[in-house]
Amino acid sequence: MENILFDYVARYINLSDEEKQIIRELSLTKYCKKGTCVLEAGKKSQDNYFVLKGCLRCYYLIDGEEKTTEFYTELDVLSPPCVKDGTYSDYYISCVEDTVLLVSNPQIEQESFARFPRFEMLCRVISENVAAKTKKELDNFKTSSPEQRYLRLLQERPDLFQRIPQHQLASYLGITPQSLSRLRGRLVKK
Amino acid sequence: MENILFDYVARYINLSDEEKQIIRELSLTKYCKKGTCVLEAGKKSQDNYFVLKGCLRCYYLIDGEEKTTEFYTELDVLSPPCVKDGTYSDYYISCVEDTVLLVSNPQIEQESFARFPRFEMLCRVISENVAAKTKKELDNFKTSSPEQRYLRLLQERPDLFQRIPQHQLASYLGITPQSLSRLRGRLVKK
Repeated sequence: MENILFDYVARYINLSDEEKQIIRELSLTKYCKKGTCVLEAGKKSQDNYFVLKGCLRCYYLIDGEEKTTEFYTELDVLSPPCVKDGTYSDYYISCVEDTVLLVSNPQIEQESFARFPRFEMLCRVISENVAAKTKKELDNFKTSSPEQRYLRLLQERPDLFQRIPQHQLASYLGITPQSLSRLRGRLVKK
Repeated sequence: MENILFDYVARYINLSDEEKQIIRELSLTKYCKKGTCVLEAGKKSQDNYFVLKGCLRCYYLIDGEEKTTEFYTELDVLSPPCVKDGTYSDYYISCVEDTVLLVSNPQIEQESFARFPRFEMLCRVISENVAAKTKKELDNFKTSSPEQRYLRLLQERPDLFQRIPQHQLASYLGITPQSLSRLRGRLVKK
């Protein structure tokens, strides 16, 4: 499974066989069954995730209702804010499908930087990319209508429409399942 | 003015006098008058910003209307996505006040990493913090009502209410100026 990570990393740096071996020996891979909750709101955690296979969903529980804010699929990096600031998580992370993750933490990362300074560069570039992507998503969400969000999602992440239950997709788009259904109807007629 | 940067950096690493001198010699400081547009939509740019003093506003022009998405004030880091991906900017950045910036770019940063590897660590940590903060903002925006957004802004960035025109604040909160005015009225009565 680690080869998926190595292919991803190869976009930025070419790992030596020694570096690959060390990553393998860290045994970061974790297999989670569909429905597994990998992080609960109100709990602390030090775990950062890299999705090798499957899908994670982040959601808040607000007035007894689940509000889905993000889906993380293959090659996505998920670093919960509670890891960074040492506070309690505001949200839940659960597996929409059987999921294979690489689970890291700041201590492992720090040790790897000490041994392989290039990893620090790698993590800087990935963090910059995650920050830029998140900012774009925030701006998109602020400046678009539900219909525009739906069309963008269909274009950029069409797989989600096969993988995610309708009510979770609707929640993610910031609308009710009924509105999503009507929206689809309108677009089919166009 | 650079001392503001040095105090900020001291949260993460203590710069040597030599490092401080080198940063001074880079002459990154830029003074911009209120109203100056530092980036236009449709233009390319390689500039990243650190706000020493003043306020930058990001906005999109959508159907002839300005849609404000962010304000950057003292000690905020602004790295436009167009710098990262080499594309044309989707938005404008203008100065709400007379503003003093440190303007950097990937080339300057790369050269500084080569000379001072600790800068790479610094930029990694700052990027991680920016990514975590942006994710929190995205989640907050998705999971809160305009009234909740208003109250959070009042708590977390009260200075904006003195510095920013009402119509830009309303746009930032995702509501009309009339709705903002009504919302304030309701909250005063409570």
